[in-house]
Amino acid sequence: MKDVSEKIMPGLTHEHHPKYFAYYTSGVSFPGTLGDILASGLSVGVFNWINCPAGTELENIVMDWFAKALGLPKYFISDSPGSVGGGVLQNSASECIFISLLVARAHVIEQLKGDSDLHDSVFLPKLVAYTSEDAHYSMEKAAKMSLTRIRLIKTDSRGKMRVDVFKEAVLNDINNGLIPFFVMATLGTTGSAAYDNVYEIGKFSKTIPYMWFHIDGAYGANAFILPEMRRFGEGMEYADSMNVNACKMLLVNFESSAMWVKDVMIMKKALSANPVYLQHDNENKVSAIDYRNYGISLTRRMRSAKFWFVFRTYGLVGLQNHVRKLLILAKKFEKLVLDDDRFEVVNEVHLGLVCFRLKHSDDKTEKLLNIITNSRKMFMVPARLNDKFVIRYCVMYEYTEERHIIESWKVITEVATHILGQSGCTNGSLNGHP
Amino acid sequence: MKDVSEKIMPGLTHEHHPKYFAYYTSGVSFPGTLGDILASGLSVGVFNWINCPAGTELENIVMDWFAKALGLPKYFISDSPGSVGGGVLQNSASECIFISLLVARAHVIEQLKGDSDLHDSVFLPKLVAYTSEDAHYSMEKAAKMSLTRIRLIKTDSRGKMRVDVFKEAVLNDINNGLIPFFVMATLGTTGSAAYDNVYEIGKFSKTIPYMWFHIDGAYGANAFILPEMRRFGEGMEYADSMNVNACKMLLVNFESSAMWVKDVMIMKKALSANPVYLQHDNENKVSAIDYRNYGISLTRRMRSAKFWFVFRTYGLVGLQNHVRKLLILAKKFEKLVLDDDRFEVVNEVHLGLVCFRLKHSDDKTEKLLNIITNSRKMFMVPARLNDKFVIRYCVMYEYTEERHIIESWKVITEVATHILGQSGCTNGSLNGHP
Repeated sequence: MKDVSEKIMPGLTHEHHPKYFAYYTSGVSFPGTLGDILASGLSVGVFNWINCPAGTELENIVMDWFAKALGLPKYFISDSPGSVGGGVLQNSASECIFISLLVARAHVIEQLKGDSDLHDSVFLPKLVAYTSEDAHYSMEKAAKMSLTRIRLIKTDSRGKMRVDVFKEAVLNDINNGLIPFFVMATLGTTGSAAYDNVYEIGKFSKTIPYMWFHIDGAYGANAFILPEMRRFGEGMEYADSMNVNACKMLLVNFESSAMWVKDVMIMKKALSANPVYLQHDNENKVSAIDYRNYGISLTRRMRSAKFWFVFRTYGLVGLQNHVRKLLILAKKFEKLVLDDDRFEVVNEVHLGLVCFRLKHSDDKTEKLLNIITNSRKMFMVPARLNDKFVIRYCVMYEYTEERHIIESWKVITEVATHILGQSGCTNGSLNGHP
Repeated sequence: MKDVSEKIMPGLTHEHHPKYFAYYTSGVSFPGTLGDILASGLSVGVFNWINCPAGTELENIVMDWFAKALGLPKYFISDSPGSVGGGVLQNSASECIFISLLVARAHVIEQLKGDSDLHDSVFLPKLVAYTSEDAHYSMEKAAKMSLTRIRLIKTDSRGKMRVDVFKEAVLNDINNGLIPFFVMATLGTTGSAAYDNVYEIGKFSKTIPYMWFHIDGAYGANAFILPEMRRFGEGMEYADSMNVNACKMLLVNFESSAMWVKDVMIMKKALSANPVYLQHDNENKVSAIDYRNYGISLTRRMRSAKFWFVFRTYGLVGLQNHVRKLLILAKKFEKLVLDDDRFEVVNEVHLGLVCFRLKHSDDKTEKLLNIITNSRKMFMVPARLNDKFVIRYCVMYEYTEERHIIESWKVITEVATHILGQSGCTNGSLNGHP
């Protein structure tokens, strides 16, 4: 522990600190940590029902709870009447997106192939996936790993996928003999926390043969725990699959990426193989879920434990209060920026993220960010939005208070004053640690 | 915690129990659990250097330590002179194998494609991967997800890939205009813990253009911590990539799958994409490793912490003693089986796994296993070896002692006596819990 203190702690970027406003964080809470300790200590492999009945069933239960808490479509909830869907915990949103793409690809190929004995790959050059240019980069990576073509659809001035451009691209591709097979909409983009128009994208996608509709709600869908935020998710009922990272807003420690599919059999078909040593008497029972067929890995940690501990400890109301607090603090910061006419806010602030910049200058905004980062008083990261360099300021931590928002704004304005050549602080005053 | 005791514990299959002899387990130890608690509590995302310098560097260090402890080829060790290779921690062996296949596929396509503007997928119908029929099932799954053809090469009577059959298949495929691009050898197969002939497979693979040689040492390569076991790894220096699950023998809690590549640039090229918000000043420095380009996920847990705690607490000698104990206990069990002429041992017992059966009868062996499983006195799983039904008996747990081996053998022989119609126990005496 001496080495942890002396060698590890000084070399960490402390994501869970009230002055960390950079990436969407990996999440932490005391109950979440306790649940994860349980998973570590038990160290059971949740890969098929017989090797871990309780781990399998708990995962299924918490995925149902989580879907209900967010108001997700009923067909994602395994215990809904008539549902053939369900949830699973993956390691990351990147993994959820990649798996969705693999499943959709297998599904379209199966339909195109029919009874022919063509090699599956002959259909690949025709397949096209779509997402917005502001979607998470893992979608581009997933397409690269899947050898499928991807179109990054232009976004509007607020970072939302332009549905008109998307429709045109799809129809154009069909006219050229290509096969649109996958579209991903984002609820809460990485750059600006924009909510894509899920309703329009979903509705249109259902008119296109073979099109799989995936929703990446990694960050923004967590907010649906507040019923008043669900208007941003209208149209979710068109989705074939969806992912939400509970670590990004709901106090479950990373890795905690929930993924749901409308029809688990399509997923199992794409991801299964069945050697003798994994066979067991109960495997054909509907209730005996074998999670190895829901993802890439065979053995998997009992990730459900930390969800269970968090849900039970905070309760729905406790989690709602936490999310409301984050949104209020972000609005507080937005107001501070708007009240200073040297700055502009460049995104719609519905969630915890405020994207801002010095008016009229990429260079000065970048300089502002660099000086602040090097001062180590707080941590933010850049993004590009409408071809402008912007700074992302994201409130995520459980114990961030209003005073931290005010203090951080003081740091930003002091450096801005310095850069803009007005009187005020010197660079020297920014040295040292907060 | 009351619900954990009442609702979870009774529904777990206790992998870490002296009478659990079933799958290769997910590993546990007190130091490993403590290291994992640190990772949970810090909950930092180890995806690029700047967001987690200490986590990135610790992962690199422990991967070097681990490679040195096993006597792996120098080019896998990042701090060897001239090395361009290195290690990374993935979630599972399945993931390591899938990633290796994706990287090898991207690499061969790049070479075949040259300056042409052909779609990457046009090469897929020609690509062929190889492994043995006794290799881990995730290789077949990986080929399915990669849309590449796979040949499962026959094994010999001891479960090793038949190198003559492999060579013939490769040459035959080349003659038919196909392109062999990937072969996976196994050190410690799932069914029988067989060590493939890595030297012969590797040497031959290097004479075939484009062939990537991967070694799955998930279970068996852990034993190389004992220098006397390294003879089974002769030829590892032909490998382009390799994976070892420290959870399977070396007391690091799951998920702890180490993977090494000979040339990290080939891996990065296959798995990277680079949006603005992930760019940082140090990214082009050799020493600034961004692990997001070494696998599927962006954000990743600090898995290195549990390795560090285990290595520091047990030390090399402590881990060697633990592995030696497992091998001795397995040999003890093998001797008990060999001394009873109703039974036969059907694998070479070099590691912790003994595969055995009642002579001359699949049916009776299966019945034996089912009665024992239903009695809940101990847990074993089946496998098929040379088309025979066999029972896997695997010693893995840190606190398994000789008395547990003797007690478990007593259970087995009592049920065997009952099944073979000889006098002895009735089914009734096997009811109830141990």
